[in-house]
Amino acid sequence: MIVVMEKNASEEQVQHMIDRVQHLGLKAHVIRGVERTVIAAVGDERITKAESLESGPGVAEVLPILAPYKVASRELKPESTQISVLGFKAGAGVVGVMAGPCSVESEEQIVSSAHAVKKAGATALRGGAFKPRTSPYSFQGMKEEGLKLLALAREETGLAVVTEVMSTEEVELVAKYADVLQIGARNMQNYRLLEAVGKSERAVLLKRGASATIDEFLLAAEYILNEGNSNVMLCERGIRTFEAHTRFTLPLATIPYLHRKTHLPVIIDPSHGTGHAYMVPDMSLAAVAGGADGLIIEVHPTPETAASDGYQSLDFPTFESTMARCAKVAAAVDRTLCRMP
Amino acid sequence: MIVVMEKNASEEQVQHMIDRVQHLGLKAHVIRGVERTVIAAVGDERITKAESLESGPGVAEVLPILAPYKVASRELKPESTQISVLGFKAGAGVVGVMAGPCSVESEEQIVSSAHAVKKAGATALRGGAFKPRTSPYSFQGMKEEGLKLLALAREETGLAVVTEVMSTEEVELVAKYADVLQIGARNMQNYRLLEAVGKSERAVLLKRGASATIDEFLLAAEYILNEGNSNVMLCERGIRTFEAHTRFTLPLATIPYLHRKTHLPVIIDPSHGTGHAYMVPDMSLAAVAGGADGLIIEVHPTPETAASDGYQSLDFPTFESTMARCAKVAAAVDRTLCRMP
Amino acid sequence: MIVVMEKNASEEQVQHMIDRVQHLGLKAHVIRGVERTVIAAVGDERITKAESLESGPGVAEVLPILAPYKVASRELKPESTQISVLGFKAGAGVVGVMAGPCSVESEEQIVSSAHAVKKAGATALRGGAFKPRTSPYSFQGMKEEGLKLLALAREETGLAVVTEVMSTEEVELVAKYADVLQIGARNMQNYRLLEAVGKSERAVLLKRGASATIDEFLLAAEYILNEGNSNVMLCERGIRTFEAHTRFTLPLATIPYLHRKTHLPVIIDPSHGTGHAYMVPDMSLAAVAGGADGLIIEVHPTPETAASDGYQSLDFPTFESTMARCAKVAAAVDRTLCRMP
Amino acid sequence: MIVVMEKNASEEQVQHMIDRVQHLGLKAHVIRGVERTVIAAVGDERITKAESLESGPGVAEVLPILAPYKVASRELKPESTQISVLGFKAGAGVVGVMAGPCSVESEEQIVSSAHAVKKAGATALRGGAFKPRTSPYSFQGMKEEGLKLLALAREETGLAVVTEVMSTEEVELVAKYADVLQIGARNMQNYRLLEAVGKSERAVLLKRGASATIDEFLLAAEYILNEGNSNVMLCERGIRTFEAHTRFTLPLATIPYLHRKTHLPVIIDPSHGTGHAYMVPDMSLAAVAGGADGLIIEVHPTPETAASDGYQSLDFPTFESTMARCAKVAAAVDRTLCRMP
Repeated sequence: MIVVMEKNASEEQVQHMIDRVQHLGLKAHVIRGVERTVIAAVGDERITKAESLESGPGVAEVLPILAPYKVASRELKPESTQISVLGFKAGAGVVGVMAGPCSVESEEQIVSSAHAVKKAGATALRGGAFKPRTSPYSFQGMKEEGLKLLALAREETGLAVVTEVMSTEEVELVAKYADVLQIGARNMQNYRLLEAVGKSERAVLLKRGASATIDEFLLAAEYILNEGNSNVMLCERGIRTFEAHTRFTLPLATIPYLHRKTHLPVIIDPSHGTGHAYMVPDMSLAAVAGGADGLIIEVHPTPETAASDGYQSLDFPTFESTMARCAKVAAAVDRTLCRMP
Repeated sequence: MIVVMEKNASEEQVQHMIDRVQHLGLKAHVIRGVERTVIAAVGDERITKAESLESGPGVAEVLPILAPYKVASRELKPESTQISVLGFKAGAGVVGVMAGPCSVESEEQIVSSAHAVKKAGATALRGGAFKPRTSPYSFQGMKEEGLKLLALAREETGLAVVTEVMSTEEVELVAKYADVLQIGARNMQNYRLLEAVGKSERAVLLKRGASATIDEFLLAAEYILNEGNSNVMLCERGIRTFEAHTRFTLPLATIPYLHRKTHLPVIIDPSHGTGHAYMVPDMSLAAVAGGADGLIIEVHPTPETAASDGYQSLDFPTFESTMARCAKVAAAVDRTLCRMP
Repeated sequence: MIVVMEKNASEEQVQHMIDRVQHLGLKAHVIRGVERTVIAAVGDERITKAESLESGPGVAEVLPILAPYKVASRELKPESTQISVLGFKAGAGVVGVMAGPCSVESEEQIVSSAHAVKKAGATALRGGAFKPRTSPYSFQGMKEEGLKLLALAREETGLAVVTEVMSTEEVELVAKYADVLQIGARNMQNYRLLEAVGKSERAVLLKRGASATIDEFLLAAEYILNEGNSNVMLCERGIRTFEAHTRFTLPLATIPYLHRKTHLPVIIDPSHGTGHAYMVPDMSLAAVAGGADGLIIEVHPTPETAASDGYQSLDFPTFESTMARCAKVAAAVDRTLCRMP
Repeated sequence: MIVVMEKNASEEQVQHMIDRVQHLGLKAHVIRGVERTVIAAVGDERITKAESLESGPGVAEVLPILAPYKVASRELKPESTQISVLGFKAGAGVVGVMAGPCSVESEEQIVSSAHAVKKAGATALRGGAFKPRTSPYSFQGMKEEGLKLLALAREETGLAVVTEVMSTEEVELVAKYADVLQIGARNMQNYRLLEAVGKSERAVLLKRGASATIDEFLLAAEYILNEGNSNVMLCERGIRTFEAHTRFTLPLATIPYLHRKTHLPVIIDPSHGTGHAYMVPDMSLAAVAGGADGLIIEVHPTPETAASDGYQSLDFPTFESTMARCAKVAAAVDRTLCRMP
């Protein structure tokens, strides 16, 4: 890292900081500029308690040089990771689509949704059984009953099942029914939960927190990878900004940035990323053209009566036409939409 | 809520939405303007699945009218709530100060910190034993050993102990040693954890998530209150914005807004709210003048060598002078700093 | 608009607000709910001083219903506007590309750039002569000399010339040489300048301010349209958010939103929208797939030595391959890249 | 600045970047770390075209070390600047208050406001004559007639007059009547206007743009200072964030940050900074306690009927009580409210 000293830092302060840097096991390299002295600290800054150096006497700021994550980094593993679960694949040139309702509401609803999204071209079924709801007065999900219905829908269609797990106690139960464990945006920094799914054998779909930096996002992934689970997909689902005409702001530049920094597949969620059903088709096409390795889309038989998220759910015909257009766009950028065998 | 129809919505669509509103148990009141028709839906919109109405045919937007929270609202309980734990008090004209290191590091560190912050005028000791860290490679806290040291510091000073609990499994253990359970910003929407502390008999310090709206913040409090625990303090600790010269942006207007909307006490965290030790004294004074019911401040014997957050921790002398100045400002705005009896 | 009264507002306060609403020439429609009374004010709220109603006694909040812009709205003009300048076209199914260096630096630089971007498929040449620079110590542009070089490049290639105008005094001069007047993001709310270009006969490329809401953006366009100039293109160039791995955050959902609200063409600027050259190709493809009516891309013979914005400029070969890919994506979504005749 | 190379950068790429750095007149200092090579470029990076180095081969990122501004910096002028205009003073321990209506509406309105704010303790009168309005359909100000009324109010009260100037053509006219020229947030990066007021002999109140970084803010001040006008006050008026319960987010940590970086006085605008009259008293107190050198507050005889900004204007009694409380808080932090002689 680079320790930048104040303009008027004394020689004694500079020497103090050199000692501190060396005390942390790093090599200090001093550069005396016209206006300022800086100390380059060489070594693995990740494993130190270097952040507190900023409190040192005469220090103006401390600039990190190394990315704080390791196992997730493309520097460590240059080839792209492809996740493969039942018929679903994402990464390394293949675009996988997960689709289905926000919440599992009934057998008929989830099974008809599964058939519809499969017919349109999805290879995984999403559906919430344990629902993290902003209000304690909102529908909280069908819980285990919902998981059973998801498993039933998988039986009927062969689609992989993606569903959210909200707490450590539920990991075992959810993993019993699901193929992919989803960590929601609100739980991106629930470290105990990350450790728990890191110990599971299921693939993980990790959603970016609404105000997480990408470094924080990749460090959350690192918590999972660190426990030995390397089947992690990163999902951009929109960030909190001042914009109010969308529920969240969907920054698609996350795709090329993540592709440069990590080998993990990047999934885009245009439903939460916009919060309005009418924007989802265009943003799905944009994501595929922009290099996404997958999409996760909310689809409901009758969005208007959905128990949750109806405002951002596609109906079956719109999803079907969106998928047809996505396939064309994928071909135009030399990539393929994953299809059920 | 108000359902605003598109300009060119047909009579049939308007009728369809009237039916939908009535189907939700609300009374529909139609107003036909020069340019648009709007439907006012009268009744308790909180308990309905009204959000999905936005997907209805011909609907432009849906505007909620009622605040989504209830028990936390000042409308329900007009008088301010005061939290009182051992010698610590906050709310209803009394300003309570919690202070101490980010992490418990050793007996000497925590006990000397307790004595120092007590001498300066704090009535509660903060200190992390279970630490949520952005990186899996950072110091994760002393865990139960840290809790024991906090209890020891309480024994020696009489200060109330505030410490973070990160997961449901740890609630019982932490509650055994702590007087106030802190829910960190990253866990503000960890609903299982909110429910668990809601069942505890300990007071709760709930930190606002870095990108949580105030409605989301109050609904998180509602999860706790709803379980029967009414000893909740709300802590503003800064939000994520484009500003990079502070680690977070500390919006003190949260204070008058929360005082208008809720009866719960409002605590300000100028340490996390700025991320720089040199800003903490001025922002502490500003918070007290602006009406805060309490402060939580990071204080460390030697910030430069702290295991975490050194860059934003005050040393003992600076904390002492800050407290002396806060007492004067509190008096200037006709409030009092809570003191140990 | 909807005037929401406080829960405990008195009958006298409600009556006072009804009077105020009527005094503004609006019709008051009172709805008494279980918890609150609301007053729907029917009429053209745009021309009133209604915003100050919020200060009325017992008022909780005031919610506008109508969009504040008129001439720019699709409600007023349902068919999409196509802008056509020399060989450049944008809108109504045609995607036009403007490209060239951030600043005009020399005859050779701009003429070679013009030939290169034309060959690759652009139909307009961008280049700054008057440069708004964050620092007074940075290169400020070649001014009139730069304009002459742009005109020369047009003569040689037939490309339409797009260049920024920074102040009212310069409008006449810039309009003498340029085909499209660009209003930069920093000047989006420079109302005198908007009025001045509104009186010009040149087409206008209006860039969104980095923290402008879309309503503010469309109202800025309205200032121009209101003066009689209807050749306005809206350019999304990224917003300020907490994200630091891109210079700005490019919210492509602006495209479907603007297409729904306005008839004006929507241009995307992936160069400023990301701030990194390596992200520009993917975001160009995403923009075209997402429905953009045009792109504006920074291209430089040797980005590394550019007088400004080198970090986000494409070199000639990368621009050429990007254009080839954009053409394929445009075809996949049933749109066409505009080509020189 | 520090040029950080990619992990796998070749020796040839490193050498190329060393050459580029030297070509810019900087001295290159190479540090080969365990994982990366970095090149420290020593010299005055402000006057170079260094930003484009990021496009160099093998470059990961470029980190600036020096602040980009000079004349505004406290390093250059360690003692605080005090601005003094008629009876108004701000800076160096004195807190000056400017108050008055958003817009000048009539002689009676502005003169009565002047008397009221003077009586309460303000030493400058604010009032808009040229109004930058988001909508072309809103009241645009009384223009020169308004300026004359401001001058009349000054004649009657002795208060210094602060009013906004929106374009270069108006600078001369406004300077004829006003004592302090205000540059509004929307024009913070209108560089021609900054240059024009830089040539004026009037003091300048420069408002921070709603999404300007502090570096951009200080560089805008630098444009003014650079023309020879050193009477510049910096005004924090709130930034755009995701928060919707306030119109803007008022980040008071701007005060200690600016005090550390610049010698110029820091004024806080709690009216625009919150957008709600009921929050203004608390945020005024907070600003004074937090170290502000001045306040600018909107005050109107009858906020409810104001031609603009009524929702955030104080009435006379509330302003008077706020000033009385501010004086007490100022005393508590060893500073004094400036008073009319």
